[in-house]
Amino acid sequence: MQLRIEITSQPIDPHLESPEEMTGQAGAVVEFQGLVRGEEEGRAIAALDYEAYSPMAEQVMRQIFQDIASRHQCLFASVTHRIGVVPVGEAAIHVVVGAQHRAEAFAMLTEFMDRLKQDVPIWKRRSLAYQAMPASKRP
Amino acid sequence: MQLRIEITSQPIDPHLESPEEMTGQAGAVVEFQGLVRGEEEGRAIAALDYEAYSPMAEQVMRQIFQDIASRHQCLFASVTHRIGVVPVGEAAIHVVVGAQHRAEAFAMLTEFMDRLKQDVPIWKRRSLAYQAMPASKRP
Repeated sequence: MQLRIEITSQPIDPHLESPEEMTGQAGAVVEFQGLVRGEEEGRAIAALDYEAYSPMAEQVMRQIFQDIASRHQCLFASVTHRIGVVPVGEAAIHVVVGAQHRAEAFAMLTEFMDRLKQDVPIWKRRSLAYQAMPASKRP
Repeated sequence: MQLRIEITSQPIDPHLESPEEMTGQAGAVVEFQGLVRGEEEGRAIAALDYEAYSPMAEQVMRQIFQDIASRHQCLFASVTHRIGVVPVGEAAIHVVVGAQHRAEAFAMLTEFMDRLKQDVPIWKRRSLAYQAMPASKRP
C-alpha cells in the first residue's frame, strides 16, 4: 500500500488527486475531513490550536497503517494533519483511502481514525481569541 | 437535512464545497467516489455504460435519505450519479455527507450506498469498445 503522511501548519487543500498509477485499480476512494466546529464542549470557540510532536506522530501513524493494512487490503492512503491554530470551519485533518472495493476503504479509514485519537501524540486546545487568525477570518 | 441529488451524463467534478451556511456546524465531511475499475468479473473492460430511469432514480434516492435521516443526524448530503459511458478510472458516483460528528456521517454514507445498490433503478453494462470514449483515453 502506498502511504503519504504530512503534518503541516498550512491550510489543508482537500483537492488531492489519487495516485496516477492507481487508475483502473481503485474502485473506491473514501475521504474524511475533520473540521473545527464553532462549539467545543458547549462553549463557543474561535479556533482550535493543535500541537504535535511531529516526528513521533508521523511514526505512530505509519505504525497504525501497518497494523490495519494486514486486515484491510487497500491501495493507497494519504493523511494530512494540520497543526497550530485552525479556525472554525477549516479542516484539522484530511484522510483519503483508495481500495478495490468500498468496504475495505471504509473499514481502513474508520479504524485509522479510531486509533489516531487514541494513540497519536497530537493535542488540541480551545482558542477563544482571534490574534492568530488572518484578518479575513475575523468577525 | 439539506439534500442535493444530480443525475448527469457529464464527468463528475469531485471538488464540491460544503454548503456555506454549514460552516462551524459540520465537524465531519465524508466523501465517497465509486470509480470504474479496469476489470469487471474477471474480464478487462474499457468502460461501464450506466442507464437510469432518472426521475424514478432521484425519487428513490430521496426516499432512502428520508428513511435513514431519522436514524443518523446529518446536516447535508449530496449525490452525483453519472450515466452513459464512464471510462475506466473515472467516477460513476460521488456522495458527500456532512454531520456534526464522524460516526453519523460514516453511518449515513455506508447505509445509503447499501440501499442504492439494492433499490435504485440504475443499471450498468460492460463496454469493451472505445467508440464512445474521448481520443485522449484510448490506449
